[in-house]
Amino acid sequence: MHARSPEVVVSEVGPRDGLQSIKRMMPTDAKIAWIKALAATGLPEIEVGSFVNPKLLPQMADTAEVVSAALQLDGPAILALVPNLRGAERAFAAGVHRVTMPVSASRAHSLSNINMTPEQAVEQVAAVCSARDSLAKSNGAGRRVAVEVGLSTAFGCTMEGPVSEDWVVHLAGLVAKAGADTVNLSDTTGMGNPAQVKRLFRRLHAEVGNKAGGAHFHNTRGQGLANVVAALEVDVRTFDASLGGIGGCPYAPGASGNIVTEDLVYLLEAMGLRTGIDIEALVAARLHILSALPGEALYGHVPEAGMPKGFVAQYAN
Amino acid sequence: MHARSPEVVVSEVGPRDGLQSIKRMMPTDAKIAWIKALAATGLPEIEVGSFVNPKLLPQMADTAEVVSAALQLDGPAILALVPNLRGAERAFAAGVHRVTMPVSASRAHSLSNINMTPEQAVEQVAAVCSARDSLAKSNGAGRRVAVEVGLSTAFGCTMEGPVSEDWVVHLAGLVAKAGADTVNLSDTTGMGNPAQVKRLFRRLHAEVGNKAGGAHFHNTRGQGLANVVAALEVDVRTFDASLGGIGGCPYAPGASGNIVTEDLVYLLEAMGLRTGIDIEALVAARLHILSALPGEALYGHVPEAGMPKGFVAQYAN
Repeated sequence: MHARSPEVVVSEVGPRDGLQSIKRMMPTDAKIAWIKALAATGLPEIEVGSFVNPKLLPQMADTAEVVSAALQLDGPAILALVPNLRGAERAFAAGVHRVTMPVSASRAHSLSNINMTPEQAVEQVAAVCSARDSLAKSNGAGRRVAVEVGLSTAFGCTMEGPVSEDWVVHLAGLVAKAGADTVNLSDTTGMGNPAQVKRLFRRLHAEVGNKAGGAHFHNTRGQGLANVVAALEVDVRTFDASLGGIGGCPYAPGASGNIVTEDLVYLLEAMGLRTGIDIEALVAARLHILSALPGEALYGHVPEAGMPKGFVAQYAN
Repeated sequence: MHARSPEVVVSEVGPRDGLQSIKRMMPTDAKIAWIKALAATGLPEIEVGSFVNPKLLPQMADTAEVVSAALQLDGPAILALVPNLRGAERAFAAGVHRVTMPVSASRAHSLSNINMTPEQAVEQVAAVCSARDSLAKSNGAGRRVAVEVGLSTAFGCTMEGPVSEDWVVHLAGLVAKAGADTVNLSDTTGMGNPAQVKRLFRRLHAEVGNKAGGAHFHNTRGQGLANVVAALEVDVRTFDASLGGIGGCPYAPGASGNIVTEDLVYLLEAMGLRTGIDIEALVAARLHILSALPGEALYGHVPEAGMPKGFVAQYAN
């Protein structure tokens, strides 16, 4: 299934973005079994957890152990979120292939999410990149960990409302200069629309060139896949998603969180864009969530409706 | 609210497409109250019922009465579906502004849906257009009823699987030659994808020119709004939708039917495309369905999540 590289990269964030918004703990063994099933679907990337203060997010306290198990799997790049240098050092020690760092465009969101201003978050990116470079140097010809930054609330903020696009683009430039390999745009709050998506990704590319990364969309207002189509129009080729759309906002029933991996992969494969991912294996992997977190609400239309008659996925070609 | 014409026309089909797939009857008074509330939102078009055999669809037996009440409303064009000449004659007598006729691209679907081959359905279109022309002539300078044809299963069929695009385009040409004013493409089965949508609407326009009409998408696999974005890219400017997404397939829970009017209008207004429709009034109109059909499953993310902070709709500009 990994014989050819995917035309569009789907990056699974359920074990991180999904689980961090669910209060119940998924046992470590269950996480590992789930991630193993995700890897077997052909997913090229999995964000398996975050290195944050375990007092704040006890669901993520076992991330080092999860990373260690995930690194044994054949295939996917293993990612973890880190908010700061301290988290990055733990992630480097655990051996992740890539760290993702949130830098929020909204000042209010930045303070509430990581207790830093956007400028302080950029300084953390610089510190993490510098530590990463020293480590790579000391490893000799060793492995260099990639640093990916996601600009949170890039399309709007629940606290501040609209966020200045000029500021988002400027911040992307600062982050790139700080040493990040990739700058993604995140619609953390599900406020983005397709016109804005096209505009902002075009501007991101103009600002940071080939450091322009992928899209992280939430489906809060049902606009997630519509925004994906808009992003594809301007050549975005990496998308975050979570199995079953977990990560939803508990006070907005029906308003799911991340875009649903199953529906996203179906969209791409139906459009003729090779993802390398087996949709039916994705649907089957939902059972890992349901058995470890009974009663958890899962989203997604494709798992309910099934494949259309005569549907031929790209990986079967 | 009707001061300026909309940039994109949203055509509400809930009272027809939605109700015909729900076994329970909505009382006539409740239908009329609901349609009145829909008209008050600023919707420019409402398909209020169908003139079909009442033995087959008893939910639609009161369509003449519903049309008569709807024609009293200020604003929206009043549409009704007719499968054949007999239905059209009843629709003309009731005074509708426009009739919509289904012509299915899939032979199997055509036979099961209207008991005619696609070629026989085209003959009915010709007969209806001819009757419409005679009526307009006999009216002198009177009103001419528009005939709109929706090519069902244009993106695939649950019975036949993929449907030939060449055949769909050829059929569109036949329907236009038969006298239809507008030819729409319908993804009756929720099998369409954005690449196909762009391709097929481009070909439709090449074949029938300014008779190329709008899109009727179902959200069976969650791809409805993604397909809308693709259609907007190739200048489609009319979209069917149903309030609360009613019209769903009862054996596919979560797999809603038509695209949800509330989420569609939000998408368009957020993109800066003026619809003339008040989103909050749409959300409020859901109560008409819930009170007349208690327990009916309604879909839609925007009604749950609400408007984003600082959101400015086009009609408020």
